[in-house]
Amino acid sequence: MSLTPDWVKDAIFYQIFPDRFRQGAGPMGMPAPLRQDFEPWEATPTLRGFKGGNLWGVIEKLDYIRELGFNAIYFCPIFASTANHRYHTTDYFQVDPMLGGNEALRRLIEEAHQRGIRVVLDAVLNHCSRGHFAFQNILENGRFSPYLRWFHVYGFPLNAYSGKANYAAWWDNPELPKFNTSTQEVRDYLLRVAEFWIEFGIDGWRLDVPNEINDDSFWQEFRRRVKAKNPQAYIVGEIWDDARRWLQGDQFDAVMNYPLGRAVLGFVGGETLDKDLAAKSGLGRIESLQALAFSHRLEDMFDRYHWDIVTAQMNLLTSHDTPRLITLLRKDLKRTRLALSLLYTLPGAPMVYYGDEIGLEGGHDPDNRRGMIWREELWQKPILDSIRHMARLRQGQPVLRRGKYQRLYAQDGHLAFARIHEHQALVVTVNTLDEPWKPVIPLHGVWARGQEARDL
Amino acid sequence: MSLTPDWVKDAIFYQIFPDRFRQGAGPMGMPAPLRQDFEPWEATPTLRGFKGGNLWGVIEKLDYIRELGFNAIYFCPIFASTANHRYHTTDYFQVDPMLGGNEALRRLIEEAHQRGIRVVLDAVLNHCSRGHFAFQNILENGRFSPYLRWFHVYGFPLNAYSGKANYAAWWDNPELPKFNTSTQEVRDYLLRVAEFWIEFGIDGWRLDVPNEINDDSFWQEFRRRVKAKNPQAYIVGEIWDDARRWLQGDQFDAVMNYPLGRAVLGFVGGETLDKDLAAKSGLGRIESLQALAFSHRLEDMFDRYHWDIVTAQMNLLTSHDTPRLITLLRKDLKRTRLALSLLYTLPGAPMVYYGDEIGLEGGHDPDNRRGMIWREELWQKPILDSIRHMARLRQGQPVLRRGKYQRLYAQDGHLAFARIHEHQALVVTVNTLDEPWKPVIPLHGVWARGQEARDL
Repeated sequence: MSLTPDWVKDAIFYQIFPDRFRQGAGPMGMPAPLRQDFEPWEATPTLRGFKGGNLWGVIEKLDYIRELGFNAIYFCPIFASTANHRYHTTDYFQVDPMLGGNEALRRLIEEAHQRGIRVVLDAVLNHCSRGHFAFQNILENGRFSPYLRWFHVYGFPLNAYSGKANYAAWWDNPELPKFNTSTQEVRDYLLRVAEFWIEFGIDGWRLDVPNEINDDSFWQEFRRRVKAKNPQAYIVGEIWDDARRWLQGDQFDAVMNYPLGRAVLGFVGGETLDKDLAAKSGLGRIESLQALAFSHRLEDMFDRYHWDIVTAQMNLLTSHDTPRLITLLRKDLKRTRLALSLLYTLPGAPMVYYGDEIGLEGGHDPDNRRGMIWREELWQKPILDSIRHMARLRQGQPVLRRGKYQRLYAQDGHLAFARIHEHQALVVTVNTLDEPWKPVIPLHGVWARGQEARDL
Repeated sequence: MSLTPDWVKDAIFYQIFPDRFRQGAGPMGMPAPLRQDFEPWEATPTLRGFKGGNLWGVIEKLDYIRELGFNAIYFCPIFASTANHRYHTTDYFQVDPMLGGNEALRRLIEEAHQRGIRVVLDAVLNHCSRGHFAFQNILENGRFSPYLRWFHVYGFPLNAYSGKANYAAWWDNPELPKFNTSTQEVRDYLLRVAEFWIEFGIDGWRLDVPNEINDDSFWQEFRRRVKAKNPQAYIVGEIWDDARRWLQGDQFDAVMNYPLGRAVLGFVGGETLDKDLAAKSGLGRIESLQALAFSHRLEDMFDRYHWDIVTAQMNLLTSHDTPRLITLLRKDLKRTRLALSLLYTLPGAPMVYYGDEIGLEGGHDPDNRRGMIWREELWQKPILDSIRHMARLRQGQPVLRRGKYQRLYAQDGHLAFARIHEHQALVVTVNTLDEPWKPVIPLHGVWARGQEARDL
């Protein structure tokens, strides 16, 4: 049996930031916000404002998503929250009413599954919003609260809304009290959340800052309970660097593969890449890489984990935590397309951040979370064409999904590599320079004698 | 058709303050508090502490309740709240996890209905907790919030946890932001709450401070929607004085009949009554009443409303908002029993606050919310005997439930009245003095010629 879910190796993910994708026609949950008080869709996003995108809007655009070749959606958080990004959870058992509530998710899962699209949700289990029920109980009742040991409280009254937090909080942000996961009731709660939504029908969990719950046994139990409900559920952690600790087969299936994205940007982006912009985000300072250094990075990465894990990694260039792809590449369409094409030909499941496929621009948060553009005349069609083309290629060639990586040629801005699986092989050549390259490369027995190569 | 639900005329209500009735064995909801952090059951209650009573405990004691003759329970609020009294609602669609969550209520309703016991819940719709989702959204996002018009906000940032509230709040208490019920989304929400729990299976609503929603159309719509779901649902408002505005047949079925309770205490309590204690509660300054003045008060009250309403009134002596009956009567058992007996023989449905039936003591809030005593050796058995006896009498005599009130004799501490319905009549005599009274009273055609009186 494979260490990781098989479907992930065949998956191409589309990441959706729910408040910004589309405001669909459908009932809101309770309590309902006032639609007329949403910010204008096209206006520059603000840190605290809402644009009113919802799950009904995603349902309306499932055919758009499918047509581009995506067969999985990874959603930024959708549970009830006071923040437009919803990383500040107030109720883990309720889809945010603004998004349409649990009813909209039920419908979305049905409609997505009918189209062969899987649904992965974001779990933020290390901390919650200061508006969370258990935390509010302490806030109101102080030492009289029976929820005291849900958090790490250092004094009373709680300084939740003024001054420095006197309780453990994520990055000392008083908005985000950290759960005390050594308390049994808290573990039960969080693991029940994980089970509940798997039972509800989702296909996996993306785990937000899981390293902050510094307790392997927590994630081991998380895996056991989730896989008991659905052995094919995908568990992917937000680990930005070396993830060996979590990828031993007993915790996560995979991680968000930022190192791969950084390498691709460093290789394809070259001097075009806006490194200062990248450096202000979680991407950090990105080095320019020549082909050989780039390939070495990849090879190290692929050697680091079991091949079942490598092919199930969530590979990405950008996300809600980084600037937009086209902005990082200073609107260079060719490099944008090349970076995406590489993403689709390397081992691991490609993930595209909504809007990158049409060339949506954006710098830092919240600018990287603009309202999706639905006026086609504003789309960068060549990017869409690349996305569509590469998806078809990947779907048509199992070797691109499961094949080993073999470097064939790597010099300066020129890279050629093969993907090899059983009796199939596929060669990819990349030229990051402005001048044309007519690659002449040794094929080192990539194909068996007598086989014929075909240009795809 | 009757203006008010028929079953209420046959009802004897038992009021339960859920945190203090009984800690039963059953699963808590999510997020679960830590049982070991509850206050000791027997300790003096504190303003902010929890004793961990729950709905499982009520289920365990349904037979106790039924055996005492009660056939309806009126619960203080049970929805998710940060306060032990739960008047600070944070989620109107969730039974508090500490009480066992929605699952416990579902079970309670089933078990109660099987025993012929109806269930009335407390609706606090004027305001909510500052922990409520919509309010928290404004607190976190200020003028960027799409929930702005859910409340009456006068400035930013909200002073919810320090200083004076800059938004409308109940009695200017920043913990309790007042809903803006002129906003359609808010009305929809609150009225949906009302419908939801009726559909869930409850038998009626007790409305907390309904006069604060100064809008007849709100309560008219409330009635229409509730009665559309269940025409026999009981709607009883917390109106402490003249309630004609709400008792025209288009808003409430009845009110909590505090004026009747005050009159009974003034008459039966006499000089024994602790008036200073009463005066510090909502009962206000209670006048001592002689029999004639007492009867006049009653007669005025009964004339004020339609008879269908009079017989559906929720008559009470004490509640979670008053000191305990036996404490008000300075532990005078005879007067305590007499007051309760009067309650059971007057027109309107009697309501007894949990614990009063065993002589539980208690002064001001929170002392009037002590943990129920389950050690029978500590019970005041004579009160229980009276309660049981009077319940049987009332259940056996339809005239006590529907019969008109007719004063026969009223002088000093002596009162005699008849309850008359169709061809039945029943005479009640009350002596509030210490000396025995052998009443010789004219029966003014109470009985038809030839009928025989029987001593019950």
